[in-house]
Amino acid sequence: MPFGPLSQRQVLIREVAPRDGLQIETRWIPTERKIELIDRLSATGVYGIQYTSFVPPKWVPQFQDADKVAAGIARDPAVKYIALVPNRRGFERALAAGVDEVTLPSAATETFAERNLNRSIAGCIETVREVVRAAPPGVVVSASVSMCFGCPYEGLVPVDRVVEICARIADAGAPVVTLGDTTGMGNPSLVRDVFRRVRARCPGTRLAAHFHNTRGSGLANALAALEEGVDIFDGSVGGLGGCPYAPGATGNIATEDLVNMFHGMGVGTGVDLEALVGCARLAEDIVGAPLPGQVMRAGPWPPAARPPRPAAIGV
Amino acid sequence: MPFGPLSQRQVLIREVAPRDGLQIETRWIPTERKIELIDRLSATGVYGIQYTSFVPPKWVPQFQDADKVAAGIARDPAVKYIALVPNRRGFERALAAGVDEVTLPSAATETFAERNLNRSIAGCIETVREVVRAAPPGVVVSASVSMCFGCPYEGLVPVDRVVEICARIADAGAPVVTLGDTTGMGNPSLVRDVFRRVRARCPGTRLAAHFHNTRGSGLANALAALEEGVDIFDGSVGGLGGCPYAPGATGNIATEDLVNMFHGMGVGTGVDLEALVGCARLAEDIVGAPLPGQVMRAGPWPPAARPPRPAAIGV
Repeated sequence: MPFGPLSQRQVLIREVAPRDGLQIETRWIPTERKIELIDRLSATGVYGIQYTSFVPPKWVPQFQDADKVAAGIARDPAVKYIALVPNRRGFERALAAGVDEVTLPSAATETFAERNLNRSIAGCIETVREVVRAAPPGVVVSASVSMCFGCPYEGLVPVDRVVEICARIADAGAPVVTLGDTTGMGNPSLVRDVFRRVRARCPGTRLAAHFHNTRGSGLANALAALEEGVDIFDGSVGGLGGCPYAPGATGNIATEDLVNMFHGMGVGTGVDLEALVGCARLAEDIVGAPLPGQVMRAGPWPPAARPPRPAAIGV
Repeated sequence: MPFGPLSQRQVLIREVAPRDGLQIETRWIPTERKIELIDRLSATGVYGIQYTSFVPPKWVPQFQDADKVAAGIARDPAVKYIALVPNRRGFERALAAGVDEVTLPSAATETFAERNLNRSIAGCIETVREVVRAAPPGVVVSASVSMCFGCPYEGLVPVDRVVEICARIADAGAPVVTLGDTTGMGNPSLVRDVFRRVRARCPGTRLAAHFHNTRGSGLANALAALEEGVDIFDGSVGGLGGCPYAPGATGNIATEDLVNMFHGMGVGTGVDLEALVGCARLAEDIVGAPLPGQVMRAGPWPPAARPPRPAAIGV
């Protein structure tokens, strides 16, 4: 156990429902409801909230109100407000909107990068380099690598390639790199292998995990990542995202299910689980459909005091 | 890794949908549909099928056709047909029906035993002892201990108590003991602790794991048990069981999700995953409601040859 007993571990939770969760929503979610969700999330104790995306409106019409959302939320100084920005222009908009952290997307496969990010992997990495140089002090520039555990276009993704791309992104200056399994193709053994090898290659880089529950193993993958020393985890309240209208077909892991498991294990998150469950119910109300989160129905277990999260482990 | 690399491990899968999955169904499922499901499951390569329960019909009306089901199925000699029997009389019925294995229920808490099994824990263990003595050669007598990881009536269950009860059941002569988390209250750390300590106390007893996904961590708990050397796992196709009509509220872990994860890790099960997914769809058709299994919607990943399961690890 090179990272110490799990019961003494502390992790950071990043809530991504307002961005990753809403990204696939084709129906318009009113700006005030997005703000309501973000403000409720701000009171849960999560480390950060991925609260919007500064993409061109024609790419994702749902985020055409990114500036209004950023202006409308009640910021809590203890929470990091994180925006996805696809390019330099999005970064400038995010800066103007007062973002704490930006996440730059990239991918482990060229096909996904070309089809979903409209550029090559090299282009994504170049954008990371540019934005890192342009970022003012105090604004964290993190990078997110999709398809690290499998790709719907290319299938199996060689671990060597994932390691190489993460190393290039680390070289470009991103202090935090998130390894993503957007289509839920990972398994715990692969997750361990990938994180172990990326960590060995990029010892100075903070690694984060972004799992989906598409095939039911999202929390098992999170457990594997935790045991490999990962201490930043993404989740989406209620499991918002993916395809909420296909019964049982889930997207992101439900933040409250993840936190409930971690708390049961004695892993500190700083999150008020009951408040998080309230946010999951709000998310259901906002999208008007049942979400796949489990703890919001069964109730948290075990009942636990809210474990502290020391500020020292912040990014 | 005291149990060897996971990629060289082999496990036995027991399918419990026809018993545990249907137990909570209040609508009558016609006998021929139960037989159809069992026969389809027989062709998937699972080690065993918990195919019915020889309980008094007034306890569980759904199983009033247990004898007809037992007489109607097409038995595959490679599959173990396992029945739940609550008492000596149920055992005699099961024997007459040609069962390969019987499972005797017990519990880690008195309240659950009294309320759900109508007797004390000591009474349950005495029944195990009687049935072990009465069993003819070739009929395996296994025991199942509910509430090993938490109890809806008593809350937290001391690990010491679980260890003690498992030891008494092992002393009563059961060669296989299943530790159950019927209400999904376990977490991976607790699962590791319980199995490690029960194994240390009962070194000659084969341990099996029965998890529910009530709080989303079912496969994470299975991963923890696997890493503690458990090599018999229960699952229910589609996640049948629990409360299928409450959206997102699941019961048993979905067998196909479990097998998909294991195959991705290189853990052999001997199961034809595509055939199992077909059974999950059949289960949905039989109960007439969407089930929470994920792989039946997203499709198996990675595509893998069916890994062999050596007969040597059979019970």
